[in-house]
Amino acid sequence: MTLPNRVHIYEEGPREGFQIEKGPIATARKIELIDALSQTGLTDIQIVSFVNPRRVPGMADAEDVVRGITPKLGIAYTGLWLNEQGFERAVATGRLAIKGTIVLCGSETFLKRNQNRDFAAQAASQRALMERYQALGIPVERGSIMASFGCNFEGAVPVERIVEVVGQMLEMAREHGVTLRYISLADTMAWATPESIKRVIGAVRDKYPEIELGLHLHDTRGMGVANAYAGLEMGITRFDAAVAGLGGCPFAGHAGAAGNVCTEDLVFMCDEMGIETGIDLETLLDCARLAEDVVGHPLPGSVMKGGSLERLRERARRAAS
Amino acid sequence: MTLPNRVHIYEEGPREGFQIEKGPIATARKIELIDALSQTGLTDIQIVSFVNPRRVPGMADAEDVVRGITPKLGIAYTGLWLNEQGFERAVATGRLAIKGTIVLCGSETFLKRNQNRDFAAQAASQRALMERYQALGIPVERGSIMASFGCNFEGAVPVERIVEVVGQMLEMAREHGVTLRYISLADTMAWATPESIKRVIGAVRDKYPEIELGLHLHDTRGMGVANAYAGLEMGITRFDAAVAGLGGCPFAGHAGAAGNVCTEDLVFMCDEMGIETGIDLETLLDCARLAEDVVGHPLPGSVMKGGSLERLRERARRAAS
Repeated sequence: MTLPNRVHIYEEGPREGFQIEKGPIATARKIELIDALSQTGLTDIQIVSFVNPRRVPGMADAEDVVRGITPKLGIAYTGLWLNEQGFERAVATGRLAIKGTIVLCGSETFLKRNQNRDFAAQAASQRALMERYQALGIPVERGSIMASFGCNFEGAVPVERIVEVVGQMLEMAREHGVTLRYISLADTMAWATPESIKRVIGAVRDKYPEIELGLHLHDTRGMGVANAYAGLEMGITRFDAAVAGLGGCPFAGHAGAAGNVCTEDLVFMCDEMGIETGIDLETLLDCARLAEDVVGHPLPGSVMKGGSLERLRERARRAAS
Repeated sequence: MTLPNRVHIYEEGPREGFQIEKGPIATARKIELIDALSQTGLTDIQIVSFVNPRRVPGMADAEDVVRGITPKLGIAYTGLWLNEQGFERAVATGRLAIKGTIVLCGSETFLKRNQNRDFAAQAASQRALMERYQALGIPVERGSIMASFGCNFEGAVPVERIVEVVGQMLEMAREHGVTLRYISLADTMAWATPESIKRVIGAVRDKYPEIELGLHLHDTRGMGVANAYAGLEMGITRFDAAVAGLGGCPFAGHAGAAGNVCTEDLVFMCDEMGIETGIDLETLLDCARLAEDVVGHPLPGSVMKGGSLERLRERARRAAS
């Protein structure tokens, strides 16, 4: 199978990162990083989540962050919400791209820990969200399935369950007369390997060939880039990623582990393999270094430390001429 | 293509790591790490290099390290040498597995910086080594080709050149009546991507289908595990790796970058994909944490921070019962 010619990267570093950092990080510095990311060529940047500030104190200033950024034309700045209340907060900012999303989960235990809901309550809450989206004329763009590859509390998540959850999600959308643009399979707790990426994508496609799939990958066990490559081999063109590898999940039950697959490492791999991202790597590397400065500690991204090859190619050309 | 059932991992962490660390690291602590690695199931451990102590001060105690370890039956403890002088030092220890190796390079500029030789001088030195091996009845097990995927000083290394260097190496071996067991393609300066791994391996195999190939990967730009996966997809079963991601190359012209592909992250990926390594992951994770303690700073390995999945599976089983 040939790799795709172009991929779309959804930057989630600010949201993923600021949500997990013990901080506190000054609102102005969050804004500084987001404004820097706006200069890279990224067209989708998730900047905040609208969640309970008692559970996620790092997001207590979400509205201030949204208010403070200098939006650049052509970029969709988005927020994350897990329920209607969060959604109403996002809408109320008046400054975000409101893309309808619904979220289901492959593990009920994780769902309970993460959102204090069982499968049925989650489905009900997502139906309520879809009704709200429809009442406001907001298209439902994306479905996400958390814990699509395994769960720290339940262990392996059977492939069949993910196929089932995809079916449930498509059915929910159909009931509301909605067509999902794509479904993102999330490796929320970093259980995936390249082979399980291919297995789950393959199984979902076998049953539901009509739905486009994306990947949300974590790098906690160092598989992030390899899993992204396996996704590319399966023709996946939509990836969530986080600049400098910011992020992680505050409820995943392990401390100090790496966050999301690193945007600039993913862009580097795509660049070097001839896959377009529309993102300028050098500018993004500056953002990754800025992210380290903002959070005040080293972050896991590799290319920001090792440097790009384009710079070395230039040097080699100069030396040869 | 199906993945291999079993791979052989050549541990190079002690040699790669102690050679690049600013140190000084006490000889006893080097020995402690090597002895711990002996308990993991690894069967090939490269523990020192016999190089000029003025150029690589961290290896000045090579003989003491070799003398100090407690060898375990069934493990080949090896050393690296770049010339006859180093080879004689290795032999003189009387405690190492002496496996004949020859080394060529895809980049003449790198060769000059790394070993102060041009292509012709390198070939001559390797011929001299082969003659010495033969005089002592030592089989020539492995050929290595440095800078097989690119060079920080020359830029891209053409695939055709690597095919040519492989041909030259096979010809040199044939002249001496020697059959190389395999040739290891080294991504010395971390230029490879999964696609270039496949491209180079494919091109070499097209021309020389009879020779087995291995991979020596660096993780400087975060591609190490993805490149190993691409190698597995190409049926490669021999990988060099370094516990905790120790290492790097002191002459590669970039500072502070990650070292070799991390052994325990590679073992983790293999385990989870059903590929046997013969190595116990949990014991190896303890070694990785010990390696951080020995060098006195964090190392890049991921699974030692994120934890293995087997531990989480056990916990989930206990919770469910």
